[in-house]
Amino acid sequence: MADQKKQGDSKGAKQEFVQHLTPRSVDFAQWYTDVITLTDLVDYAPVRGCMVVKPYGCALWERIKEELDSRFRATGHQNVMMPMLIPESLLLKEAEHVEGFAPEVAWVTQGGKDTLQERLAIRPTSEAIFCAMYSKWVQSWRDLPLLYNQWCSVMRWEKSTRPFLRTSEFWWQEGHTLHETPEEAQDETLRMLEIYRQVAEDALAMPVITGRKSESEKFAGAVATYSIEAMMQDGKALQAGTSHNFGTNFTGAFDINFLSREGVLKHPYGTSWGASTRLIGAIIMTHGDERGLKLPPQVAPIQIVVLPIAQHKEGVLEGAKAVADALANAGLRVKLDDRDTVSAGFKFNDWELKGVPIRVEVGPRDLAAGQLVAARRDTYEKITLPIEGAPEKLRALLADIQRGMYETALAFRAAHMKTVASLDELGEAAQNGFAKAMWCGDEACEDAVKAKTGAGTRNMPFDQTPVADTCVCCGKPAKHVMYFAKAY
Amino acid sequence: MADQKKQGDSKGAKQEFVQHLTPRSVDFAQWYTDVITLTDLVDYAPVRGCMVVKPYGCALWERIKEELDSRFRATGHQNVMMPMLIPESLLLKEAEHVEGFAPEVAWVTQGGKDTLQERLAIRPTSEAIFCAMYSKWVQSWRDLPLLYNQWCSVMRWEKSTRPFLRTSEFWWQEGHTLHETPEEAQDETLRMLEIYRQVAEDALAMPVITGRKSESEKFAGAVATYSIEAMMQDGKALQAGTSHNFGTNFTGAFDINFLSREGVLKHPYGTSWGASTRLIGAIIMTHGDERGLKLPPQVAPIQIVVLPIAQHKEGVLEGAKAVADALANAGLRVKLDDRDTVSAGFKFNDWELKGVPIRVEVGPRDLAAGQLVAARRDTYEKITLPIEGAPEKLRALLADIQRGMYETALAFRAAHMKTVASLDELGEAAQNGFAKAMWCGDEACEDAVKAKTGAGTRNMPFDQTPVADTCVCCGKPAKHVMYFAKAY
Repeated sequence: MADQKKQGDSKGAKQEFVQHLTPRSVDFAQWYTDVITLTDLVDYAPVRGCMVVKPYGCALWERIKEELDSRFRATGHQNVMMPMLIPESLLLKEAEHVEGFAPEVAWVTQGGKDTLQERLAIRPTSEAIFCAMYSKWVQSWRDLPLLYNQWCSVMRWEKSTRPFLRTSEFWWQEGHTLHETPEEAQDETLRMLEIYRQVAEDALAMPVITGRKSESEKFAGAVATYSIEAMMQDGKALQAGTSHNFGTNFTGAFDINFLSREGVLKHPYGTSWGASTRLIGAIIMTHGDERGLKLPPQVAPIQIVVLPIAQHKEGVLEGAKAVADALANAGLRVKLDDRDTVSAGFKFNDWELKGVPIRVEVGPRDLAAGQLVAARRDTYEKITLPIEGAPEKLRALLADIQRGMYETALAFRAAHMKTVASLDELGEAAQNGFAKAMWCGDEACEDAVKAKTGAGTRNMPFDQTPVADTCVCCGKPAKHVMYFAKAY
Repeated sequence: MADQKKQGDSKGAKQEFVQHLTPRSVDFAQWYTDVITLTDLVDYAPVRGCMVVKPYGCALWERIKEELDSRFRATGHQNVMMPMLIPESLLLKEAEHVEGFAPEVAWVTQGGKDTLQERLAIRPTSEAIFCAMYSKWVQSWRDLPLLYNQWCSVMRWEKSTRPFLRTSEFWWQEGHTLHETPEEAQDETLRMLEIYRQVAEDALAMPVITGRKSESEKFAGAVATYSIEAMMQDGKALQAGTSHNFGTNFTGAFDINFLSREGVLKHPYGTSWGASTRLIGAIIMTHGDERGLKLPPQVAPIQIVVLPIAQHKEGVLEGAKAVADALANAGLRVKLDDRDTVSAGFKFNDWELKGVPIRVEVGPRDLAAGQLVAARRDTYEKITLPIEGAPEKLRALLADIQRGMYETALAFRAAHMKTVASLDELGEAAQNGFAKAMWCGDEACEDAVKAKTGAGTRNMPFDQTPVADTCVCCGKPAKHVMYFAKAY
């Protein structure tokens, strides 16, 4: 936890804490912890490994949800609400799946005063319950595709946790779909991956690599898993969304059948795909800086904070309020900070720490001149604007900040991505970024690379133009272009 | 479960099921079950007492959520996300609270392969976890009021369950607030009750009685509980939302303290308030009829269904689609039903069953005449309208339906509410509605009335103009006007 030191204030009564953030360069992990707690995104729950998402974090999640949900709806998906408990017998139906998740399940064994006949799992993910329902709901090809999603929290009994990145309980969405043909299931898998890419890049200003996971890294029960992988500022990769093609693995195990157009009873083809509150961690570690959070305007709960300067002077508060109202009426997400218990300097620091994209200052001289001062969080640049027409100018400025943040993150990634031809090179590159290399496809080489360099396979990008002929590890003929990195 | 019988169809190939609903008058409970299952609102989960909320039910809940959430935000509340698990020691802190909820708690006792040191409750409600966090977050009067809400599901191990009305898991919102003074806490308690009243009456077209619960019916741990009580078409009351004033019961038990403006360390005053997916059951039983659901336009997931008539004829599908697009562009929630696998008659029945407020028919002759036919779900009245300008006319029609449904429900309630002066009268009135009576305030009389008539106390309305001098049960001097009824 960071220090808080009270500084002298010439005006005496006002509070002027400077929130001390551990510098990113000194200790990135501690910087992250300082940021999430000092900005009131999250707190530690009184339950092991669980988090409490505070209003600012919750508002950010609601914005991310809306970006995802609107795209899910536009592609024909509907939301449902499934029970949080799964009978053990259901969870056991798909063999790989249960093996993958059983070690981290929280079990309900008592209901009221009674001991249950069968243990109930708090869902670690909901394939089992969706499939149990689908086996009732699907009869004919006319029932397909079935395109359902749910927003909920899930529970995985993790040993080592960090808020947003890995917690026992986390919030997410999980889509579960069924299709007539393997081609449609594959199309769906990639369509949803593309939506994750769009939300990551367009809304979160976070460049990602889209590609397929290795066999050893795929989801328990999937035929193929695809992911989006982002690069954090400490040189570690972060898996920010996954989309799985299940083939008939689950529909077979759960005995889901449909009468095809040809009158044949068949198993439909399944997919699932999920993205979680982990995206908040990704935003923090992609964009944050020495002064704290830096939120992409598109998902920032507050896009513009309006600060009255010398607010005790006549007309200042009213003038600042009029500016804030005009911005809010134009559909921008605005907050007027009219606290009189803290100094202007405290407010500057506070809103920079919280990552609000634009700070607008309105003082007596500004009002007299019919203008305001806008300060960008990303570049610290200050611009003077006429109050008249300010909403349109500031909207354009937000778009410019969004673009600028994406470009900065893209440049960072470009500087932290190397094509490598040897294990030594891979090890060096993966100290601080992605290593792009050829791989033979054998798990033995994945393990060897991991053991020697600490870097695991992230994904195989869709552009498989070879960068060499032989595997970076064993020297045998290479099959895949693979990104390696240390990862969250 | 209802019968489905296939009927003959002159065109041969098309499906024309008539979904057989049990008549309300024959068996209201079976009618309810038929409606919720045949309309695809909900299904039974493979976990005891739990439900699966299907897309149509989920869309309805999302509309209700938005009605509530927008009002919570407008009154300064913020959303948070709290963990679903509560350590037993926390749940035990408030004595009445634990006594009220412990018998119906689902307990997690194992995490992965380990047996937990302490049992964890799946939240039956979240006072304990909110208070645990509040004790960290509140220091000074400057931190108050604290106005937080969360949307989540909760778990109560119920013996006897019915979808939406009483299930082990249900979805709801729970607001938890802290205030400097008892007056502010009481204001908040009533402010939120008023929001529930508004949403019930204005959005759900469901008249409610607002008032205070008796001591025996109040929330476990509350100083006072207020409720909204609605009248269902079978003459039973339904509690549709509650708002609790906790005084310092929880803040004392959880050791939450703040430094007051006077520099004194004090316990803040708490409230909590909740409304749940039970509101869906309330809508069904307030408005439904022999043909199925009847949804209030304001929360109907589909406000208008557009049916092409003789859709195989040239230009009909295109014409119907143009009408649907124009309505959607005007911001109405519209669905074009262009299925060619079922007959027009099937579609009529299907959308009436699903309770869509307006059915728009567009056939070849309509298109030739530049008009459409609109059929009201509430009165079955049919109106012919020019296609030009239809969105505004239909928007007005939806408002008229909303008003009409409220008035119909209000008239029903008026006809099922009697002021009574004796136990016999009370018993008779409560066979089929509310009995308004004077009560001495003693639990013994509540119990006696319940034993003799089956009717419990619902609430004491804010208008306490006496209707008699003596208690309807014991004949001693009366203290309160009380509504009695059988209830869900």
